[in-house]
Amino acid sequence: MQWNARNPDFERTVRESFERQAQMATLNARITRLEPGAVDLTAPYDPRFSQQNGFWHAGAVASLADSANGYAAFSLAPAGTDVLAVEFKINLLAPAEGEAFRAEGRVLRPGRTLTVCRADVFGVSGGDSRLVATMLSTIIIRPLTDGPAS
Amino acid sequence: MQWNARNPDFERTVRESFERQAQMATLNARITRLEPGAVDLTAPYDPRFSQQNGFWHAGAVASLADSANGYAAFSLAPAGTDVLAVEFKINLLAPAEGEAFRAEGRVLRPGRTLTVCRADVFGVSGGDSRLVATMLSTIIIRPLTDGPAS
Amino acid sequence: MQWNARNPDFERTVRESFERQAQMATLNARITRLEPGAVDLTAPYDPRFSQQNGFWHAGAVASLADSANGYAAFSLAPAGTDVLAVEFKINLLAPAEGEAFRAEGRVLRPGRTLTVCRADVFGVSGGDSRLVATMLSTIIIRPLTDGPAS
Amino acid sequence: MQWNARNPDFERTVRESFERQAQMATLNARITRLEPGAVDLTAPYDPRFSQQNGFWHAGAVASLADSANGYAAFSLAPAGTDVLAVEFKINLLAPAEGEAFRAEGRVLRPGRTLTVCRADVFGVSGGDSRLVATMLSTIIIRPLTDGPAS
Repeated sequence: MQWNARNPDFERTVRESFERQAQMATLNARITRLEPGAVDLTAPYDPRFSQQNGFWHAGAVASLADSANGYAAFSLAPAGTDVLAVEFKINLLAPAEGEAFRAEGRVLRPGRTLTVCRADVFGVSGGDSRLVATMLSTIIIRPLTDGPAS
Repeated sequence: MQWNARNPDFERTVRESFERQAQMATLNARITRLEPGAVDLTAPYDPRFSQQNGFWHAGAVASLADSANGYAAFSLAPAGTDVLAVEFKINLLAPAEGEAFRAEGRVLRPGRTLTVCRADVFGVSGGDSRLVATMLSTIIIRPLTDGPAS
Repeated sequence: MQWNARNPDFERTVRESFERQAQMATLNARITRLEPGAVDLTAPYDPRFSQQNGFWHAGAVASLADSANGYAAFSLAPAGTDVLAVEFKINLLAPAEGEAFRAEGRVLRPGRTLTVCRADVFGVSGGDSRLVATMLSTIIIRPLTDGPAS
Repeated sequence: MQWNARNPDFERTVRESFERQAQMATLNARITRLEPGAVDLTAPYDPRFSQQNGFWHAGAVASLADSANGYAAFSLAPAGTDVLAVEFKINLLAPAEGEAFRAEGRVLRPGRTLTVCRADVFGVSGGDSRLVATMLSTIIIRPLTDGPAS
């Protein structure tokens, strides 16, 4: 699907917010695609975020997918707003293994208040990508204020 | 609800698996309750896992809740098995703020193959606890093998 | 949890909306509890809504739980508003069998815009109740207008 | 995605089970596509299944999507098995209006025990289709036995 950005400066706005997400820096994630309604995030495999069998922990996979969906939604939001995940659901389709993980966040339905996004997460090894998880998220857009984001 | 452990050595089995979850060590999480069908995990607030406003990232909150549910399910599993999250859904009810977070994982329905758990996550500050998220998880129990857990 | 109604006439408001839900009449559902933030709906087993094995179809179970949560949320909404489910997730814990089904909708977190509810659904036979499903819902509260509810 | 059926008689097996789902007959639903891993179900708008504003009730939409996903999974199951939804999550993207509804169930990941499916539901009016909901489901495949399906 093709969406139009309402904030002409959406790219800078998304990147600035992403820079402030310490969790993304901790995961060594970076933005590998940024278009209106579509954001890919990629992070290298790091054993610090694994579960008992050495695969990435579902929470690490969810972190990447949640931010990909959040920034996909944010890329369509008007200037002067912030976004917050209301809820998400993730299905873990295969063990999260690979040299890196790529979460592809896509807007399914943009709204004034609520935006719904889907993210597919792939384990990447060499030139191969394998689907390891899929997430469905609801994201709220709110006016940016000086106070806490609640 | 009260459940009976099928593995008399469940406590040691759970603790040993927990020790191998690097993601839990990275979060500085520890087990603060361990009974058949009930596991609490507690982790201190750490700004390395925050989102753009300084609250804990939804993925960090989800990590704690996912492991609490997984180990609640594992506490009821027979010896010689492993558990894996199939899927989960989380509602983020309030900004994840506090000096620490406590995820309370509880088995709703234990099964031979699938176990369903609920976790409530609280932000803890001084003596106060505030519900910040709730998760519903489906967990699969599988025979332990030498190979990868898939 | 105990909540206070903001609409002093909440009981009549909920009942009037319930009367307009044709799906509830089709299921022969009725309100069996109505308090601020808590709504129970009960419907008799009816083979017209069953799946291939004679149990109630997951969609019939979900209908009852979705309306119980929606009206639990609506009982706390201000006058002059309407509610709409944004999303829900249901875990089917046991075959939906019984002489009747009772969905207990409860508000977990009321909000100005979004309310989160949980519903447990029980199969009822004689004096016995057995948990067959649990649902987590996100519900939006919107000003009542003359136009369509979108 | 393209999948191969393991049951050469999958088409007849799916149709026979569908015929036994009273809930599908009640909704006047019929199978409008049936391929390995892909099942579409279509039902006419019927005011008996509406909510307070005349749109289809979320539970009616969920019924159609749940069966579409269940039969998409069943189309890939071996002979001599049955399927059962373990859980699903649905996002309601737009008011469920239209002359008819079409749920497109697709297998994302087939498995020996668990199959994950996605369904998109469209409101259809004349030649137009509008996405009104999307569902993510986990389905379990079990050996067919004489006893109850639990």
